[in-house]
Amino acid sequence: MHIKIIKADGTSEYFKIEKLRRSLRRAGATPEEVNSIVSEISSEIYDGIHTQEIYRRAFSLLRASEVAIAARYSLRRALFSLGPTGFPFEKFLGRLFEKHGYKTRIGITIDGHCAPHEIDIAAYNDTHSFVGEAKFHARPGMKTDLQVAMYSYARLLDLEGNKICSDSICGIKEFWLITNTKFTHTAEHYGECVGLKLLSWDYPRRDNLHDRIQRAGIYPITAIQSLSTSQLATLIEYNAIVCQDLVDNPSLLRHLRLSPRKQDLVMQEAVKICNL
Amino acid sequence: MHIKIIKADGTSEYFKIEKLRRSLRRAGATPEEVNSIVSEISSEIYDGIHTQEIYRRAFSLLRASEVAIAARYSLRRALFSLGPTGFPFEKFLGRLFEKHGYKTRIGITIDGHCAPHEIDIAAYNDTHSFVGEAKFHARPGMKTDLQVAMYSYARLLDLEGNKICSDSICGIKEFWLITNTKFTHTAEHYGECVGLKLLSWDYPRRDNLHDRIQRAGIYPITAIQSLSTSQLATLIEYNAIVCQDLVDNPSLLRHLRLSPRKQDLVMQEAVKICNL
Repeated sequence: MHIKIIKADGTSEYFKIEKLRRSLRRAGATPEEVNSIVSEISSEIYDGIHTQEIYRRAFSLLRASEVAIAARYSLRRALFSLGPTGFPFEKFLGRLFEKHGYKTRIGITIDGHCAPHEIDIAAYNDTHSFVGEAKFHARPGMKTDLQVAMYSYARLLDLEGNKICSDSICGIKEFWLITNTKFTHTAEHYGECVGLKLLSWDYPRRDNLHDRIQRAGIYPITAIQSLSTSQLATLIEYNAIVCQDLVDNPSLLRHLRLSPRKQDLVMQEAVKICNL
Repeated sequence: MHIKIIKADGTSEYFKIEKLRRSLRRAGATPEEVNSIVSEISSEIYDGIHTQEIYRRAFSLLRASEVAIAARYSLRRALFSLGPTGFPFEKFLGRLFEKHGYKTRIGITIDGHCAPHEIDIAAYNDTHSFVGEAKFHARPGMKTDLQVAMYSYARLLDLEGNKICSDSICGIKEFWLITNTKFTHTAEHYGECVGLKLLSWDYPRRDNLHDRIQRAGIYPITAIQSLSTSQLATLIEYNAIVCQDLVDNPSLLRHLRLSPRKQDLVMQEAVKICNL
């Protein structure tokens, strides 16, 4: 089967069944579900179809089979829905690294040698610390480019010698550039060359953002399908960033004035997603 | 007189007669013209008036008195009209530094240690060379900020050891950040601190972009009042960047299909501006 599909960044490639299989398996679909969905999709795709369209279709099939698995599959979309501003994404990263055992600080300002810098995320544990820039894009296909990598490196240079906490481990010498989409190849090459740590949805090949989120078992609140965009935005305003926040504190839902029945539905979904 | 006026960046300040006088003097208005225009403007302004409005009014009064002086006064506006893209501004800077005795190269790519870099302007003479980033803004009030200064510095670091020509003077060790508007204070402080050369409309206090243009006696083609925006855009496409280009090569006007009488008018204006 030689069918050309259009990727989010506008480039095209041949449709590869194995990629679809892998993403469905990753999402926790059973082998039967994978087979059934893959054969359904294969019979429907055509030259010039967008990957988003394939994804949408696979997702609706998965959803029909299991809401919670669908939420997992829709993780990438859920991250986009944390926008339009980048601040909830920063908070989400804070939660993620806390799950990895770090203490984190979000949105702090540190005076460097030549300028004050807004640091999106600072994290430290007993043996390691880093600061990072979170670059959020509200749409797939938008990449984080060389300019961002260059000003991140200049920021690291300007911050060297400062500390993010009073512990001896906290001297700034490592800078992470983190994005929910991808880096351009030039940015990747430059970042590696000057010694930045790069983390994107699928970079590096192992232990990328996707892997780390799955490993931490932490899901953005926007993975919940049974709430509308504006309802989710209200919860985010009240600092509910991950599904677990809702499970830990169901009274957050009172801000939405839902019927008792709808409340139950939402809570059931949140619990399911958290237990993935 | 305590009248508050609104500046291009949205902040307000008290109207200062001396500022208006100075700008009119700078534009070459005679003392009589300055007095007459200042008293006219003073009788008309009101709380909350925008500086652009004052400028527009002063300009129309000046224009009534002398087209060429008005062109000089409208230099800043003429630079904005080189947009919307930044490329004509880069070319204009090339012409400016050529007038200052440099050989220049515009829009070249140089492979740095970790990334390829687009260099907006590279300039050298027998004793000095530099590369620079031109940051064009199509509207006043838009400032060039810290991020731009940071990635410019990172670019300089990545380019060190490269050359912009084969002469011994051409090793890259100086980076100019040039904008047609202003820098934020943070960008100015950072740039000075890390050793970038900064040049904006009014920075540094002496020998800023405005001073340099006046000293070189070089005027953007967009200073010509008797042509429309789209007619000017056509000339820019044919690489007529400064008024002198039209004086040197009047046949450029054939692209505009003007009447012989209109052609004469335009050429008269161009010659007047060039002889300022």
